[in-house]
Amino acid sequence: MINSIKLIVLFVAITFVSCKQDIANDSKKIASEESNHPSLILTAQGVKDIRVQLGDIPIFDKTLEKVKAEIDAEISLGIETPIPLDYSGGFTHVRHKRNMVVLQKAGVLYQILDDKKYAKYVKEMLMQYEEMYKTLPLHPKTRSYARGKLFWQCLNDSNWLVYVSQAYDCVYNYLSEEERNKLETNLFRPFADHISIDSPQFYQRVHNHSTWGNAAVGMIGLVMNDQELIDRALYGIKGVDLDKKAKDDDGGFLNKDGKAGFLANIEEPFSPDGYYNEGPYYQRYAMYPFLIFAEGLHNVKPELKIFEYKEGVLLKSINALLNLSDADGEFFPLNDGQKGMSYYTSALVTAVDISYHFGTQDPGLLSIASLQDRVLLDDSGLAVALGIKNGKAAPFNKKSINLSDGPNGKQGGVAILRNEDIELVFKYAAQGSSHGHYDKLSYSLYEKGEEILQDYGLARFVNIEQKGGGNYLKENKTWAKQTIAHNTLTQNETSHFNGKYEIGSQHHSVLNYFSSENENVQVVSAKESNAYPGTEMLRTMAIIKDEDFEKPYMLDLMKVTSNKANKYDFPYYFLGQVLQTNFEYKTPKTLNTLGSKNGYQHLYVEATAKAFNENSKLSWLNEGKFYTLTSLTNSNDELLFTRIGANDPEFNLRREAAFMLRRKNTKNTLFISIIEAHGGYSPVTESAVNSNSSIKELKVVLDSDAYTAIEITNINGTMKLFITVNTNASKQQSHKLNINKKAYQWVGPYYYTNIN
Amino acid sequence: MINSIKLIVLFVAITFVSCKQDIANDSKKIASEESNHPSLILTAQGVKDIRVQLGDIPIFDKTLEKVKAEIDAEISLGIETPIPLDYSGGFTHVRHKRNMVVLQKAGVLYQILDDKKYAKYVKEMLMQYEEMYKTLPLHPKTRSYARGKLFWQCLNDSNWLVYVSQAYDCVYNYLSEEERNKLETNLFRPFADHISIDSPQFYQRVHNHSTWGNAAVGMIGLVMNDQELIDRALYGIKGVDLDKKAKDDDGGFLNKDGKAGFLANIEEPFSPDGYYNEGPYYQRYAMYPFLIFAEGLHNVKPELKIFEYKEGVLLKSINALLNLSDADGEFFPLNDGQKGMSYYTSALVTAVDISYHFGTQDPGLLSIASLQDRVLLDDSGLAVALGIKNGKAAPFNKKSINLSDGPNGKQGGVAILRNEDIELVFKYAAQGSSHGHYDKLSYSLYEKGEEILQDYGLARFVNIEQKGGGNYLKENKTWAKQTIAHNTLTQNETSHFNGKYEIGSQHHSVLNYFSSENENVQVVSAKESNAYPGTEMLRTMAIIKDEDFEKPYMLDLMKVTSNKANKYDFPYYFLGQVLQTNFEYKTPKTLNTLGSKNGYQHLYVEATAKAFNENSKLSWLNEGKFYTLTSLTNSNDELLFTRIGANDPEFNLRREAAFMLRRKNTKNTLFISIIEAHGGYSPVTESAVNSNSSIKELKVVLDSDAYTAIEITNINGTMKLFITVNTNASKQQSHKLNINKKAYQWVGPYYYTNIN
Repeated sequence: MINSIKLIVLFVAITFVSCKQDIANDSKKIASEESNHPSLILTAQGVKDIRVQLGDIPIFDKTLEKVKAEIDAEISLGIETPIPLDYSGGFTHVRHKRNMVVLQKAGVLYQILDDKKYAKYVKEMLMQYEEMYKTLPLHPKTRSYARGKLFWQCLNDSNWLVYVSQAYDCVYNYLSEEERNKLETNLFRPFADHISIDSPQFYQRVHNHSTWGNAAVGMIGLVMNDQELIDRALYGIKGVDLDKKAKDDDGGFLNKDGKAGFLANIEEPFSPDGYYNEGPYYQRYAMYPFLIFAEGLHNVKPELKIFEYKEGVLLKSINALLNLSDADGEFFPLNDGQKGMSYYTSALVTAVDISYHFGTQDPGLLSIASLQDRVLLDDSGLAVALGIKNGKAAPFNKKSINLSDGPNGKQGGVAILRNEDIELVFKYAAQGSSHGHYDKLSYSLYEKGEEILQDYGLARFVNIEQKGGGNYLKENKTWAKQTIAHNTLTQNETSHFNGKYEIGSQHHSVLNYFSSENENVQVVSAKESNAYPGTEMLRTMAIIKDEDFEKPYMLDLMKVTSNKANKYDFPYYFLGQVLQTNFEYKTPKTLNTLGSKNGYQHLYVEATAKAFNENSKLSWLNEGKFYTLTSLTNSNDELLFTRIGANDPEFNLRREAAFMLRRKNTKNTLFISIIEAHGGYSPVTESAVNSNSSIKELKVVLDSDAYTAIEITNINGTMKLFITVNTNASKQQSHKLNINKKAYQWVGPYYYTNIN
Repeated sequence: MINSIKLIVLFVAITFVSCKQDIANDSKKIASEESNHPSLILTAQGVKDIRVQLGDIPIFDKTLEKVKAEIDAEISLGIETPIPLDYSGGFTHVRHKRNMVVLQKAGVLYQILDDKKYAKYVKEMLMQYEEMYKTLPLHPKTRSYARGKLFWQCLNDSNWLVYVSQAYDCVYNYLSEEERNKLETNLFRPFADHISIDSPQFYQRVHNHSTWGNAAVGMIGLVMNDQELIDRALYGIKGVDLDKKAKDDDGGFLNKDGKAGFLANIEEPFSPDGYYNEGPYYQRYAMYPFLIFAEGLHNVKPELKIFEYKEGVLLKSINALLNLSDADGEFFPLNDGQKGMSYYTSALVTAVDISYHFGTQDPGLLSIASLQDRVLLDDSGLAVALGIKNGKAAPFNKKSINLSDGPNGKQGGVAILRNEDIELVFKYAAQGSSHGHYDKLSYSLYEKGEEILQDYGLARFVNIEQKGGGNYLKENKTWAKQTIAHNTLTQNETSHFNGKYEIGSQHHSVLNYFSSENENVQVVSAKESNAYPGTEMLRTMAIIKDEDFEKPYMLDLMKVTSNKANKYDFPYYFLGQVLQTNFEYKTPKTLNTLGSKNGYQHLYVEATAKAFNENSKLSWLNEGKFYTLTSLTNSNDELLFTRIGANDPEFNLRREAAFMLRRKNTKNTLFISIIEAHGGYSPVTESAVNSNSSIKELKVVLDSDAYTAIEITNINGTMKLFITVNTNASKQQSHKLNINKKAYQWVGPYYYTNIN
């Protein structure tokens, strides 16, 4: 069937071509407005430079060759612009999404290769769109809060215009004035109006959706040299005020603060460190319109100095985003994030190339570009290709980093601690807009890009139509966003802020300290006082490289202070096969859920135990590596093994495990844990190396308002002391403390030492 | 602690060395028996040849360099021969296992590098073993049916002697006659006697354990030139008859037929095609002693023509074994097999090199050797290294293959159908000795080395001490061996042969036909009449490449004929995430087990449904690829989603899913299914390609004793007909048949055609 459709389309295309062929384009007039094109992403000078270098810039040449092969194949199949019908993943959706990319690439090919067949193809497809669009009603699917025309949501329409603006810029001079008028009057202008003036609930916000809308309107405005559209893009729709309490499909406020436009969208979601408030998955998505529109503004309106805006936050944000990826380049799935998204995605090719070209020519970016194995076919891609060709690439070294959150960097943040192959991602940020999860002070842990303790990510199969049209599944709210789905503390089986966005979005955690000066002991500590009114959580996490341990180990001190007795649940979402515990557990005959709401309804209880020892230990095997959790427990603690998947009537959730510590009827308490990565197992050699924990004992030797101190005894007999400062954690502050009649003295927020 | 032990050991070793240094070895006498060494694996001529080529044979040089670095590091740590105490994975076990390898390698280094420090090291360690062994009691651990002395089981003792014989051969001439006498009298001879004469229940059998025993005794016999030991190795212990009904730990008969010795061990388990009756995982394990002893026999006793024995079955078996691996070189986990074991294991380096050198110098073997990236440091490794160096390597193309089972090739077999990236492994073999599973006519399906439908493999974590000492777990019997754990038919919730080894081992399935002449349509068909007395199962499976499908699809026709009404369960052990079904299912609030025994106690029921349609469809996503099962159902069929993991009190089982068809109160019936692999999904591009099935309808158009015919309608409207011949399936037989008033005529066991 696919073949026959293609044949029909080809036939239609050929017919179309033979009717309209070369009517008006051979007699060119170069009017003054024409001489400015291309100007948006490719520039006239850039095109000249590229043509000179072609054939001698390997990564650029290779990209060009692939794009040419791809677009030649598309051209040979003919043009198809079906009447819009489907949700994401459906035929018409996929086709129009494909067309926008094809148009953009064909435009670029026309410029670089100076071959009119590409311009002709772009023109013909644009004319088909013009013909359809001028009478096109709203998209028939009604699920979106802001319906598009080509797609079911304005968001996708905006995507389309961001790409197609670039195509239009590339063929601008190829088209006659009459043709341009036709396209602008019947397609581009009404298209830009629909996603902005007609859809303020989509456009007039600070939100990644709006960023796409702003960029779309702005980019077509730049090409059309339409100052009104450019202003609408930069500052929002004049005179429009939205209901500040209205919400979108995801539960986010539509426009709480009344801010709008591209500049506000830079201002609000990015912290001064370049952290994007929704997290890396959405930053990656939002990145493209931010950067491509910025590039256009830089080229057409250099006086705006867009790359210097807010102290250069756009370029900083690329560095932040690259640092928010694991060893394989995959983004940490903070908040709503689909696992597997990585810096190999095309938006990051844009980000890396633009960052290199318009930034400081960081040689580390060239090594990522080499891994990406392709570049933008524009001035920035040329710069990268030349950099690589000239041997300037150097490794992009990811180090421990603390990224503040909030427009002014005052709303908590995300810290990543790295040592050798171990990476800890600790989240003490603000809510993260409508894509935020209720997981204050949560963390995930990685070894060489593999998850040791996972963050679940989102409950969604993006663009897989069979799974709820590829959109958010209801389990995203009932499970993935809930606190119990994360490696943090749940109190009384309720989520942080009661799972209420209105409350959560008013608060953020507060950094106690971050310390990465000592390469061997990297620590972050933060406090959360609002998630459960009356309860304070102070969590201090460290990655410590110590000669008495094979690999860097993770230390976790969660100090809970409450004004009443509570039930605390403290889960560890480990992956892999249980190897051993030092406690006896019982497995039930039938599996029941752990609770009935707030995410608990999705967990089966696979085993239960009473903690006997002062230290409860669990070891497991995952992807050929051994891990051991050592956790401080008391004899009233319950230990649970749970598994995700209850109340999941459409198999939307992954059946993955957790180990959970439950402490009932407790006011103030400490959850102290160490996670060791150790040894390995190969099914080929069948040998197990260093499969046992190196920890003999873990205990608290002091806990006060001011300090918490723990002692770790290695199986080889060495003892370590770790003291964290709870209240006066400046780097300059000196401390004196007696523990077990021994005096300790140090400067700074923590102290780590051997004590025997 | 590790470091301090090493230091102590080093100190002991240094003391030892300084006392005994160079007493008798500088003044060499070359007696006539000495001139024959090395002769076992390395030969005197081979050593000369290697020394000439050294530095100019990259893969050999690289291997040598690594081995040298490894052994130099070991030597610097000193010698450690602890009193045996532990099970597999424990300290003393691991140490002695390591020592045997180190000895063998040090011996080889002495020969190739002509550096006495290696000979001295071997001598000193052997002397420590001699000192310990002469008074060593049985190993203190009592779990084995045949306890060793260095290890808890004779099997490991035999492993040790197979390696150490080679080391002894290498340093034979370095040692004084007095030293040799001491070693032979106090260590080697009693060691060989313990694993043979003292342990007939281990030695005097046809079993992979015995093969190790035979090889151990034979190899030390060859080095010592002791004809009595050589004969004991080849023919078994003279005059020993075992109880033919006794069983070993795994439930296998100790010696049902009274056969024993190395030759009987070649005779019995290998079919003429080289299939090893326990399956590839154990063949890989058994391979090393077979081949290394054969190499020794070839070198020392060429008159035996061991590589021509049973029409060259030893070399054929290597080809069979390589064909029993997936696209990544991992062996199919038939019977008890641990997943992940692959041709990268050192035993396969031996196999590939020996097969190349002593066989027909197949260039395909060189490409596998290149992947293995190392060679044996002996004559065969030299041949491989030279072959690679001289550019002779060619791809090892795995094609569809049918491997007969049984000593005479008359006990069923295993067929592998391959087309493009799809591999189907179909098992219609005999029981497979004590490691056999009760899974007649079962199959597993792979795409590019990834499982589509899995075989569970074994329930064991080999050498991981925390999991039952690394030994078989009780779930191996209660789950992994049971029929319901496999992709085949279970009748009335009982396993084939009632799960009784005595019965199962008397029977085997029978090939109906195997056809691989047509590259596009590869078919295997076999019948099982004994698994359930009164019930016959005839299963025909095909992999078909057809232009109307994106990838080759799998066709499965299971024809069941019974003399009474039964309950049939027919599972599909798919891996991954459920995407879509065309039936409505219900998910229970609590998870209960599917049954109470025969493996059913390990399955939770996650969802249930009644089949509505004639075709029940399930699609899923795994590792970025889409799959759809289309199965013929009737309205009485129950559909179940199950998950492994019930009654698993120590988390020994993996929590993996199955979809299951249940047909009650039925005598004769057909289970007809198609599995399509199609399209793909990338989390980086977030685009889903070809995510839907290409099948509109699947139906039976004829079913008789002689023929079964099905019709497949593609969504593009094309229709296919597949007819399988049930009873008269020779290649030459011509057939005529009317279906829906249309006449079909063909020659051979099946017919496949487009019918519109």
